[in-house]
Amino acid sequence: MKKEKTEKLKIIPLGGVDRIGMNITAFEFGDSIIVVDCGLSFPEDDMYGIDLVIPDVTYLKENMDRVKGFFITHGHEDHIGAIPYVLREINVPIYATKLTIGIIEHKLREHNMLTKVKRKVVKYGQHINCGCFRVEFIRTNHSIQGAASLAIYSPVGTVVHTGDFKVDYTPVYGDAIDLQRFGEIGKKGVLALMCDSTNAERQGFTKSEKTVGKTFDELFAENKNSRIIVATFASNVDRVQQVINTAYKYGRKVTIEGRSMVTIIGIASELGYINIPDNTLIDIEEVKRYPDEQTVLITTGSQGEEMAALSRMASGMHKKIVITPKDTIVLSSNPIPGNEKAVSKIINELLMKGANVIFQDVHVSGHACQEEIKLIYSLVRPKYAIPVHGEHRHLIAQKKVAEELGIAKENIFILNNGDMLEIDDKSAGIHGRAPVGAVMVDGLGVGDVGNIVLRDRQHLAEDGVIIVVMTLENGSGQVLAGPDIVSRGFVYVRESESLLEEAKHVLIACVDHCMQNNISDWTRLKAEIKDCLSEFVWKETKRRPMIIPVFTEV
Amino acid sequence: MKKEKTEKLKIIPLGGVDRIGMNITAFEFGDSIIVVDCGLSFPEDDMYGIDLVIPDVTYLKENMDRVKGFFITHGHEDHIGAIPYVLREINVPIYATKLTIGIIEHKLREHNMLTKVKRKVVKYGQHINCGCFRVEFIRTNHSIQGAASLAIYSPVGTVVHTGDFKVDYTPVYGDAIDLQRFGEIGKKGVLALMCDSTNAERQGFTKSEKTVGKTFDELFAENKNSRIIVATFASNVDRVQQVINTAYKYGRKVTIEGRSMVTIIGIASELGYINIPDNTLIDIEEVKRYPDEQTVLITTGSQGEEMAALSRMASGMHKKIVITPKDTIVLSSNPIPGNEKAVSKIINELLMKGANVIFQDVHVSGHACQEEIKLIYSLVRPKYAIPVHGEHRHLIAQKKVAEELGIAKENIFILNNGDMLEIDDKSAGIHGRAPVGAVMVDGLGVGDVGNIVLRDRQHLAEDGVIIVVMTLENGSGQVLAGPDIVSRGFVYVRESESLLEEAKHVLIACVDHCMQNNISDWTRLKAEIKDCLSEFVWKETKRRPMIIPVFTEV
Repeated sequence: MKKEKTEKLKIIPLGGVDRIGMNITAFEFGDSIIVVDCGLSFPEDDMYGIDLVIPDVTYLKENMDRVKGFFITHGHEDHIGAIPYVLREINVPIYATKLTIGIIEHKLREHNMLTKVKRKVVKYGQHINCGCFRVEFIRTNHSIQGAASLAIYSPVGTVVHTGDFKVDYTPVYGDAIDLQRFGEIGKKGVLALMCDSTNAERQGFTKSEKTVGKTFDELFAENKNSRIIVATFASNVDRVQQVINTAYKYGRKVTIEGRSMVTIIGIASELGYINIPDNTLIDIEEVKRYPDEQTVLITTGSQGEEMAALSRMASGMHKKIVITPKDTIVLSSNPIPGNEKAVSKIINELLMKGANVIFQDVHVSGHACQEEIKLIYSLVRPKYAIPVHGEHRHLIAQKKVAEELGIAKENIFILNNGDMLEIDDKSAGIHGRAPVGAVMVDGLGVGDVGNIVLRDRQHLAEDGVIIVVMTLENGSGQVLAGPDIVSRGFVYVRESESLLEEAKHVLIACVDHCMQNNISDWTRLKAEIKDCLSEFVWKETKRRPMIIPVFTEV
Repeated sequence: MKKEKTEKLKIIPLGGVDRIGMNITAFEFGDSIIVVDCGLSFPEDDMYGIDLVIPDVTYLKENMDRVKGFFITHGHEDHIGAIPYVLREINVPIYATKLTIGIIEHKLREHNMLTKVKRKVVKYGQHINCGCFRVEFIRTNHSIQGAASLAIYSPVGTVVHTGDFKVDYTPVYGDAIDLQRFGEIGKKGVLALMCDSTNAERQGFTKSEKTVGKTFDELFAENKNSRIIVATFASNVDRVQQVINTAYKYGRKVTIEGRSMVTIIGIASELGYINIPDNTLIDIEEVKRYPDEQTVLITTGSQGEEMAALSRMASGMHKKIVITPKDTIVLSSNPIPGNEKAVSKIINELLMKGANVIFQDVHVSGHACQEEIKLIYSLVRPKYAIPVHGEHRHLIAQKKVAEELGIAKENIFILNNGDMLEIDDKSAGIHGRAPVGAVMVDGLGVGDVGNIVLRDRQHLAEDGVIIVVMTLENGSGQVLAGPDIVSRGFVYVRESESLLEEAKHVLIACVDHCMQNNISDWTRLKAEIKDCLSEFVWKETKRRPMIIPVFTEV
């Protein structure tokens, strides 16, 4: 797998293309490899029992001596989540802005790895030399603070990687995206732009985070007599700040509920990213001491996550908060694709408890729409365009935007995971592939659940299992006990008694037949049992439970 | 369960409230019960292996002698799908318009029940006497032809049930909704309005079906050199008609692909609901004889359904159609909530094959938005409002609209399944409950999969199964063979060999311990084995596979 030195820059997405999340991209030149982001993704619906999915970093491990550092654009899970797994094997420093490092440190601490991974806080405008690369962090805006775009200076030219971004002229905290610097770098000449495609299908501009603040103000004014509960993303510190500001204005105490939000707000508060007026925050235990109309709860669970605080409130399982018709609940988020039904379930449950639920127009996206994408292209004016972040459809949508702006079709690259894009100012093309893949994490196991196990889980999920047990005599192969049948997840036992009784007769006939024909090899015997039971069950029920014959010998 | 005669009208939703689909509502007065619609719903994500869900009609069965007929508003599955199951047990006539009956007959034929169920075709404007009720069918618009609203005349007043509807002033086939008749009935006085809430969260008006035709015209004009593939709902005959019209205009041959679409178009064509110019339709086998730019495929699968034609084309599994960069594919539908990811998957796959995929603004809804709902309320002017069709959130959204129109809060009823609303012109209130529920259909089994089986399937899906087998000696209870371990869906065997080996040692120690302590009762022995193996596996892997101890005795 080791490659000869090359005079071109190589850009290799090791994840993040075919599934949302799991963003990780290698940049390679000569003896240096740097990596941008190190994210995880959440399991697809058919990945039964899987907790997380992380990228296969075989390519980095095989080139370990050349890997110089990880550059992280911001602190969302799809950009940092795989760090504890990947940095266990590849011990190089991590570079990121202060809040991002703060969140990463919390994560490393949970994995008992804080002392094992070197971290370096980088300021906007700062340049980091790393092997034959230099990386500059550029201030940008996103739905989490501390988000950075990167200018990656290589010996053959500059690559600008936006990370996740939007253009927010009036951000809640800190300054707007450093458009001047994008322009300045662009003016000097940029080889390639790797630009966020998440919202590339949407026309226009993404609204400023501050517009949500105005909406909160109206909502608080309209609901002066209710307790107000606001659910949003745990990591959206600016959103939380705006709820706190509004609560303060209306003389309400604020409590924060949900483990991940408490964690992030704790980190943000410690590092000075959030400003909570004195005597505003109260513990959840104290909430009941105040009249409803003097409290605000900020909580996790806006995506309908089953174990999150809002979900437990909606289903009446929350230990401390009981939803009543006097509550106004604001879902300050839009469902991420795939979460629509879970979010709807919570809205329904809350409405059934009589609460006032507000879920339309109380959120803005953290990603750039078409006009912002055009703006960045126009400032950077890259020779090549490499749309990143988003599903294939979003990359294609950005490709269309880039074409409209006059970038030649053949200079736009939609990469697949593992594609090695070789690029310099003369030409660019895909040459070779790095090994890539999704490694499934289930409990403590990393990569020990593969396709066979998943296929079995799916089979079991669909129609359950029938276990056929027999005891055979050592030597003679005579049946001493059984066949007995045990089933789970097939049909309810009382309903199926006669069916399973019949199945047993079918099995006895099958075993007799095998014995008469001297079929005593266990593999063949098991195959016969499977076939004949499977056929019987299909005929009777049109179902295909997994059939597991188990023999013992005495 | 039998009820005394009452002088109030009872309205009892037997399904359709807490889950989308499964619409079925009983209207009861004196010795008469009539039923509106008889739909199924599709399984929720956690209903592993379930094919369909149908309503529990215990209430109707218990009052069989009083049930007089089923009135079906239109031919969508969520309004007719349970007919073959329910009408097997309750043998009364079905009343519906011509196309609806045509679709129902096809369904009955598939279930071998055509001769068993009486059907009566009803025309718009026709009144049916049924027990002490009279039911009038009113012309309305929806995303399927033949949709009817119902005016249900009871001895204590009139109930108007819109069914699924929209207001389409310029429908593709037939006439616009009969607003005059709504007004006329309203003028005479209406007790209650049961109005479609599906789009009640949306402001404004739903666009006319005809606007999609205009879009098709533009798309065909812009893509003169591609083959065009249009995916839409099988039952949206008007949409298909418009594709055919446009194809005809541009001199293209049309082929229809996907079993359900072929079926519905066949029925619609036979009954005169669709007009296909001569020499336009070709068989799918003939497609390859024409140049790409002279063909159009109309296909199922716009919701990302895994087995549908479009899905097979996208994944390269379709036997007759191979997608190439010369194809333009139009998804003329929006994803139904819950299908977003499946639809996105297909869009991505088609784009990866280089096709041009168009999925924005080529669809209009079949349901009324807020302004249309207001229009119907204003024509009907009911005393009571009973929002129907939609999740709880949608019913609540309509409630807000009704309140804005001046209907008193206490006259608006958000019913739960089973609620018995007793109503006349003096008062209305919920008195009593009918038994209701969701009956799961899995293969040939109706209702034989319950919560225990589902819980087992979920458990199996999450972490797989470990089977522990032992052979014990009859009488002495001594272990003759085992404990042996077989696992499926737990961890890949090669990876887990040492783990399972260790587990076996743990089990041997556990069994020894039991023997020494004279624990020989199988139930206790199995419980001990489960506990100790479960604890070991959790400690080692943080997973909880299902553990099934199976003993045989010789």
